[in-house]
Amino acid sequence: MLIVMRKDATPEQIGGVTAAVEARGLKAHPIPGAQRTAIGITGNKDALDAPAFESLPGVLEVFRISHAYKLVSREAKPEDTVVNIGGVAIGGRRLALVAGPCAVESREQILTVARRVKEAGAHLLRGGAFKPRTSPYSFQGLGEEGLRLLAEAREETGLPVVTEAVDVEGVDLVEKYADAIQIGARNMQNFSLLRRAGRAKKPVILKRGMSATLEEFLMSAEYILAEGNYQVVLCERGVRTFSDFSRNTLDLAVVPAVKKISHLPILVDPSHGTGRREKVSPLSRAAAAVGADGLMIEVHHDPDRALSDGPQSITPEMFASLVREIAQIAGVVGRAV
Amino acid sequence: MLIVMRKDATPEQIGGVTAAVEARGLKAHPIPGAQRTAIGITGNKDALDAPAFESLPGVLEVFRISHAYKLVSREAKPEDTVVNIGGVAIGGRRLALVAGPCAVESREQILTVARRVKEAGAHLLRGGAFKPRTSPYSFQGLGEEGLRLLAEAREETGLPVVTEAVDVEGVDLVEKYADAIQIGARNMQNFSLLRRAGRAKKPVILKRGMSATLEEFLMSAEYILAEGNYQVVLCERGVRTFSDFSRNTLDLAVVPAVKKISHLPILVDPSHGTGRREKVSPLSRAAAAVGADGLMIEVHHDPDRALSDGPQSITPEMFASLVREIAQIAGVVGRAV
Amino acid sequence: MLIVMRKDATPEQIGGVTAAVEARGLKAHPIPGAQRTAIGITGNKDALDAPAFESLPGVLEVFRISHAYKLVSREAKPEDTVVNIGGVAIGGRRLALVAGPCAVESREQILTVARRVKEAGAHLLRGGAFKPRTSPYSFQGLGEEGLRLLAEAREETGLPVVTEAVDVEGVDLVEKYADAIQIGARNMQNFSLLRRAGRAKKPVILKRGMSATLEEFLMSAEYILAEGNYQVVLCERGVRTFSDFSRNTLDLAVVPAVKKISHLPILVDPSHGTGRREKVSPLSRAAAAVGADGLMIEVHHDPDRALSDGPQSITPEMFASLVREIAQIAGVVGRAV
Amino acid sequence: MLIVMRKDATPEQIGGVTAAVEARGLKAHPIPGAQRTAIGITGNKDALDAPAFESLPGVLEVFRISHAYKLVSREAKPEDTVVNIGGVAIGGRRLALVAGPCAVESREQILTVARRVKEAGAHLLRGGAFKPRTSPYSFQGLGEEGLRLLAEAREETGLPVVTEAVDVEGVDLVEKYADAIQIGARNMQNFSLLRRAGRAKKPVILKRGMSATLEEFLMSAEYILAEGNYQVVLCERGVRTFSDFSRNTLDLAVVPAVKKISHLPILVDPSHGTGRREKVSPLSRAAAAVGADGLMIEVHHDPDRALSDGPQSITPEMFASLVREIAQIAGVVGRAV
Repeated sequence: MLIVMRKDATPEQIGGVTAAVEARGLKAHPIPGAQRTAIGITGNKDALDAPAFESLPGVLEVFRISHAYKLVSREAKPEDTVVNIGGVAIGGRRLALVAGPCAVESREQILTVARRVKEAGAHLLRGGAFKPRTSPYSFQGLGEEGLRLLAEAREETGLPVVTEAVDVEGVDLVEKYADAIQIGARNMQNFSLLRRAGRAKKPVILKRGMSATLEEFLMSAEYILAEGNYQVVLCERGVRTFSDFSRNTLDLAVVPAVKKISHLPILVDPSHGTGRREKVSPLSRAAAAVGADGLMIEVHHDPDRALSDGPQSITPEMFASLVREIAQIAGVVGRAV
Repeated sequence: MLIVMRKDATPEQIGGVTAAVEARGLKAHPIPGAQRTAIGITGNKDALDAPAFESLPGVLEVFRISHAYKLVSREAKPEDTVVNIGGVAIGGRRLALVAGPCAVESREQILTVARRVKEAGAHLLRGGAFKPRTSPYSFQGLGEEGLRLLAEAREETGLPVVTEAVDVEGVDLVEKYADAIQIGARNMQNFSLLRRAGRAKKPVILKRGMSATLEEFLMSAEYILAEGNYQVVLCERGVRTFSDFSRNTLDLAVVPAVKKISHLPILVDPSHGTGRREKVSPLSRAAAAVGADGLMIEVHHDPDRALSDGPQSITPEMFASLVREIAQIAGVVGRAV
Repeated sequence: MLIVMRKDATPEQIGGVTAAVEARGLKAHPIPGAQRTAIGITGNKDALDAPAFESLPGVLEVFRISHAYKLVSREAKPEDTVVNIGGVAIGGRRLALVAGPCAVESREQILTVARRVKEAGAHLLRGGAFKPRTSPYSFQGLGEEGLRLLAEAREETGLPVVTEAVDVEGVDLVEKYADAIQIGARNMQNFSLLRRAGRAKKPVILKRGMSATLEEFLMSAEYILAEGNYQVVLCERGVRTFSDFSRNTLDLAVVPAVKKISHLPILVDPSHGTGRREKVSPLSRAAAAVGADGLMIEVHHDPDRALSDGPQSITPEMFASLVREIAQIAGVVGRAV
Repeated sequence: MLIVMRKDATPEQIGGVTAAVEARGLKAHPIPGAQRTAIGITGNKDALDAPAFESLPGVLEVFRISHAYKLVSREAKPEDTVVNIGGVAIGGRRLALVAGPCAVESREQILTVARRVKEAGAHLLRGGAFKPRTSPYSFQGLGEEGLRLLAEAREETGLPVVTEAVDVEGVDLVEKYADAIQIGARNMQNFSLLRRAGRAKKPVILKRGMSATLEEFLMSAEYILAEGNYQVVLCERGVRTFSDFSRNTLDLAVVPAVKKISHLPILVDPSHGTGRREKVSPLSRAAAAVGADGLMIEVHHDPDRALSDGPQSITPEMFASLVREIAQIAGVVGRAV
């Protein structure tokens, strides 16, 4: 932390701040400048709350200069983490393609979509059994029955299964049936859920919250790692802005930003990130080009009849065509599909 | 819903859209204009997903024109709801003043603060026993012990107690010890938690999520009412913006907006809404002036040593002085404290 | 500025950064910590671009810790500035009430509104002759004829006149006819316009841009002061967010934030800040309660027929009633109207 | 426009709204629904201000359903516009690569950079002679001397020149020396400047404002077309959000959104869009993959000594390597460089 004093701060005020710092067991390093004095603070184990010193006499501003993340940082682990989901590596040379319907709706639907995305080149099957919906009157998913259908689709296609858990009980069930546990954007700071996921035996895909900073996103991952589960995959799915033409604003710059700070792999979900079918393919290509470790895409064989988020789902044909484009772009960035 | 056709849409395309609407059991009402045709849709019980029709030939745009909220709306219940928390009315003529520390830290601390805010004019005591924190390494609250201390503070001061639950198990405990269950901003769309709160026997204070629209905020309240708990109080606590001078941007215009659409009472929390002690009193006065039904303010007898959010806490002296100002402003808007 | 080194930074890397700092004529102050070294930099006259050092080997992060504003800061001038607009003081004990139509539409209209707001207690008359409109096909104002009508309204009522200039030529005209030059939100970073306003002989009211940080807002004011015009009044008018219920989000916390950093007075415009008639009075009361130096309010005698922004205009009757409320709230914060 | 009535609206209220609509010379089309009546309005030439009807008795909400843009829309001109800048086509099969320093600093600098980007494959040279800077104390560009140096660099390399004008006088000069006039983000709603650019004989590159919606962006382009200049290129350069890791949030989804609504070409500027050198190449690849018509990239032969925005500039070597990647990605989307 760094405390910047006012130009007219007296030696007594500077001494008062130094004393306040030392009273907390920290070390103060005054840096006299031409116009004003700054005071560096060392010795703090945690990120201190900057404002604590702001009300001391003579203080102009206080800057927090350390971050609280530890286990997720590249300083803690310089090499990239590769997460294994049912035999599929996320974060290695191959881009991971996760595809499937927003929600599991029926045996026929999930089996149809699973077969079609498998044929088209998907590596993992997605599909929601527990759906967080803005309205209590919307379809909320098939629950455990949905999980059973996903497991059946895996038996038939060989695709490992990724599905969301929305509460602690749900993690028990997802852990039992699926290959990876997804934590949705609305639950990114549901810390009880994060801790439970941190004790799970399966990998976790953590989606970025709608207004989460990078620091908050990484700190939520830190919750999972801190409980002992190091198999964490991040996922960008768009942030909330004033946009008048897309449901969310897909923030692709977060991919190189995560890569610089953290060793964890990161996927991009262009379906939720845009909310519109015609934008899914362009933004998927962009995500591959920006360096994401994979894509998470909603595919439905009959999107106009989908019970949930149909308008942002693409058809299996569109997905197959997209996989071919992604394969070419992957080559440009030294990857493959 | 309203579908706007392109200027060059053919009669066949207009007929196609009409047929698609009717195939869903809805009624289509073409409105021919000078330049283009629009098609009104009636008969939908739920809010339809607008994009479903966007990909039909000849369609320019689709507008969703109905909202999904029912029980929370003034159309469902024109008169204001008054919520009773341990004998204190929220939403009536008197502004409700909820005060106390961010977190319960010790017996001495909570009793000291409770006595001081009671003397100064508070009606309800707040204090966190379960603290949702960005970092897993920060103080997370005293848990059930904190709830017991809150109950003891109520015994001594007579102030009913409001405290946050962060998971389903927490609601069981908070329901047992406290007078109202607070759902925090990070959990505004934790729908499992909302449903559990909807089955609670105690009133619920629901905080607005950091990037929640008014519709999402009201729909989260709808989850609680839909389970049978009509004792819901809303609370504005600031939204996330690009601001470089406050932790959040307190959105006071939401107060008259809620009053217009919904019968539920609404509080304002200027402590989280600004994150800075020196802004709490000005924004508290503003909240009273804008027509809020009460205030939720962090007060700590020794804010610089608080274990959580000290910098945004005011002292009991500042609170006492603020209550006097609020009392005068309340009079201007036909209220009292 | 402060440079934070990686934990594994070598002494050579630390030496390299120190050398790079000194090569720019600055002084480096290494602060060795338990885990890592930080390097404070002094001697810089301007705000340095932080990223310049970010690519040096061993550097983790760079923090900019000084601000570029000089003349607008309280460090430069501790006492409040009081701006005189045609004999009306802005920033003193009395709240300034600026009222009038969005646009001057006709002689009859501006004279009618001017008389009515004068009777109701306004101190200054507002009204646009040059209107910045999103669409080139919307009414753009009466131009110089509008300025003449404003001057006539001043003759009749005695109210000094505030009106917007949208380009350099416009400043010439506004300077000639009006008592203060308004710079609108869309032009907050039109630096040619700011410089011209800085050479004007009349006071300037500078509105905050739709997505301006506090630093950018103050730096735009700095442009005006740097040219020699110290008669600057700031004005908050709402920022752009994801809000679904108001045109902009009025950011009242900027008022105490400005007061802490700068000596300039600040008004609040709740008409543009909300875009809805029914929110103008509540937010006006809130602005007075938060400590603003005055209000800028759109009043039209026949808002439903206004050529511009009618829906956010209130009637003279509503304004008169609002003035009575504001007078009471002003008393609570040690002010008067 | 569509007016939605309250469920309990009386026939008299519905009749009142119909009368109000017709009093404005418009046509009302009541659409009776199961729960409530909606009233469609046709006959309006301009976009009506929705709130005008909101205060009528019985009205629940009013929806604006038409857009004000005309000349920029695909309805007005279905085929893509190709803009010719000094012989280089923007919007055709070839991606346009615009490269050069943020600011022209000296003869040697601009000639060196121009030669290097030309060798590497750039089609157009960029460089600022008039720099809009947040601080009045920062380097503001060389002015006309900078324009002369740009013209000299064009003579030597054959690269047409793109440079920004910040005021009406600047357009005169830029028109004289350069091949295209850039309007910067801060001036996107400087309507006097837009109108002057609309009367220029050279093409205009219009950058999106920091918080501009798509509608506002297109309406600003409409200002230019409405004055007779149809040679307009749009440019996305990032929007302002709460991001803690990039200066702006590059909104790549705007590219397919523009393509759907408008015939104008659109570039992406990943340098301003991210503000960080290490993100420029990833986001440039992403922009090519999403379907942009070209890129606008800051290149400096010695970025750490650049007078303006050095940290977001890449070196000529990095640019050459990027061009090779872009060429491969262009092939995937049916384009070339």
